[in-house]
Amino acid sequence: LSEQSGYWLAERDLPAVTLDGTRIELMGNIEFPSEAAHCIDRNADGVGLYRTEFLFAGHDTDPSEEEHYQAYVHVVQTLGPNKPVVIRTLDHGADKFPNHAEKISEERNPFLGLRSVRLCLRNLPMFKKQMRAILRASVQGDIRIMFPMVGTLLELRQCKMLLAEVREDLLEEGIPFKKDMPVGTMIEVPSAAIMADKLAKEVDFFSLGTNDLVQYTLAADRTNENVAGLYNPADPAVLRLIDSVVRAARTNNIGATVCGEMSGDPLFTQWLLGTGLRQLSVSPQNIPEIKKLIRRINLSDAEAMAEKALQLDTARDVTNYLREQKRRIQPDAID
Amino acid sequence: LSEQSGYWLAERDLPAVTLDGTRIELMGNIEFPSEAAHCIDRNADGVGLYRTEFLFAGHDTDPSEEEHYQAYVHVVQTLGPNKPVVIRTLDHGADKFPNHAEKISEERNPFLGLRSVRLCLRNLPMFKKQMRAILRASVQGDIRIMFPMVGTLLELRQCKMLLAEVREDLLEEGIPFKKDMPVGTMIEVPSAAIMADKLAKEVDFFSLGTNDLVQYTLAADRTNENVAGLYNPADPAVLRLIDSVVRAARTNNIGATVCGEMSGDPLFTQWLLGTGLRQLSVSPQNIPEIKKLIRRINLSDAEAMAEKALQLDTARDVTNYLREQKRRIQPDAID
Ligand SMILES: [Mg+2]
Ligand SMILES: [Mg+2]
Repeated sequence: LSEQSGYWLAERDLPAVTLDGTRIELMGNIEFPSEAAHCIDRNADGVGLYRTEFLFAGHDTDPSEEEHYQAYVHVVQTLGPNKPVVIRTLDHGADKFPNHAEKISEERNPFLGLRSVRLCLRNLPMFKKQMRAILRASVQGDIRIMFPMVGTLLELRQCKMLLAEVREDLLEEGIPFKKDMPVGTMIEVPSAAIMADKLAKEVDFFSLGTNDLVQYTLAADRTNENVAGLYNPADPAVLRLIDSVVRAARTNNIGATVCGEMSGDPLFTQWLLGTGLRQLSVSPQNIPEIKKLIRRINLSDAEAMAEKALQLDTARDVTNYLREQKRRIQPDAID
Repeated sequence: LSEQSGYWLAERDLPAVTLDGTRIELMGNIEFPSEAAHCIDRNADGVGLYRTEFLFAGHDTDPSEEEHYQAYVHVVQTLGPNKPVVIRTLDHGADKFPNHAEKISEERNPFLGLRSVRLCLRNLPMFKKQMRAILRASVQGDIRIMFPMVGTLLELRQCKMLLAEVREDLLEEGIPFKKDMPVGTMIEVPSAAIMADKLAKEVDFFSLGTNDLVQYTLAADRTNENVAGLYNPADPAVLRLIDSVVRAARTNNIGATVCGEMSGDPLFTQWLLGTGLRQLSVSPQNIPEIKKLIRRINLSDAEAMAEKALQLDTARDVTNYLREQKRRIQPDAID
């Protein structure tokens, strides 16, 4: 392992660039402000997913605007003024949100219930407080805001309307914020993937949340071992959805990234770039391995294999094919 | 109401045919064998969905093959030899299946868990017993078998392989069955809708289960009032999925029907026919109203409006548009 660490260290400063010279942005997913340092350690191109649930954990009351603000400023200052930091607004389930004013009835299927942005849209003061802190922090660097679990254009428009209200408040109060802070949506509900061509006209970027997208597309709870055989990011239905989302983003000239676990799994790297993705966000510890792989990818080969994988029948067929294609470019790797 | 009943009675024997002369098959959904008579009363073209869960309800043991067989024969004899009866194999949730041999762990999200065909594929003797009874009954009329909650090609192939095994057993035992009994799959998991072009090559017909399809596509539990605003068959993402499924069925020359609640809602009748559907399965009590509407539809108008609805942004836009289009052909109706 120490030998390997030395190897990674030597690779650290090499860019994530394909054999044909295309630069791929390789970002880190973080959960706590302190993890921003891990991204810097691995020379990440930014933070592609900054989860904000920690702010709400273990407290009796919702976090104050100042607590939000300090957490965001810490990360953006660690990253520096030029590296993007994508802040995802609260993505809790109702069950993990004890401070919520409205009493939520016990839900029989919480993954299909009042969670994430759905919950935020029911708690506007809390949601606007988070937006306010994000906007205030935006002047410190390249901060971007991202809404999770958006399933419809209506929800996205509601989020954007609230953000516009918060901007107006700040303007009135003379508090500085970046007027063109990019706004993105996660694509993790099948309906959002299917409506990606429309959503793309109303945001600056997409971030594919593959964990939820897989579970909803296959109707298989990702925490339920009874259906673990169905929950599979290699399912061709999932590949088709992702491909169509990336296509919609490219057609509309907006950014697209993947931040689910799939993006940190070397099995999928070639396929993801082959669909046209030029940005991935992964756990910081996966950055060296994924970068090493990117540097062996020829994009026109990747495009051909992406197309071929889309025509396969089953998750098993896809897995076998991707494994074989990975071995082709990385014969020395241990699967 | 009695006046209306008289009106329905007069219309009873008219065929479900569009203004331009296209015959639409209008079938009934039933839950109990006795309801087959309701289908005959309304002059249904067959039973498009025969649910079989009742066989398992309120018993300590699984039903015997003979109990299955008698229940199927009763319906097919009520319908007569020429009207199709589509029998859906067991579609229970794990929670409603107390007789299951294997102890199912308590599931946190049962709608995303071990239910329906997933459960049957874990209980092969029970599943094969049902298949056996269906095959045996098939010689009595136009019986068709349909598998619910199929999400992948692998699951469908497993079901078909079991059916082939049961056929072989019957053949060996010299028990008669219809060798070309049609086999269909429900399309109600988003992955199945997305893979419809592939599934269509391996079945004789599709039946769109819109209730589940809507809930999974929008990740909104259809029994949870907290997300009732999201659960909406008029969501354009749902329309797009249905449209692509019907297209796949037509391209592959297989049957396609809708058996979810959407098919019995007059708001959607014109749109459904506009996508190319030529068969609907509805609650028997909805047959007269839907037939009346079908008889006012011009298919080329319906096709144009179907196309237009697919381009809309939100469920509200769709609902308003469909309502307006319904009023156009049925100005006297009360919404
Ligand atoms: Mg998620
Ligand atoms: Mg269903």
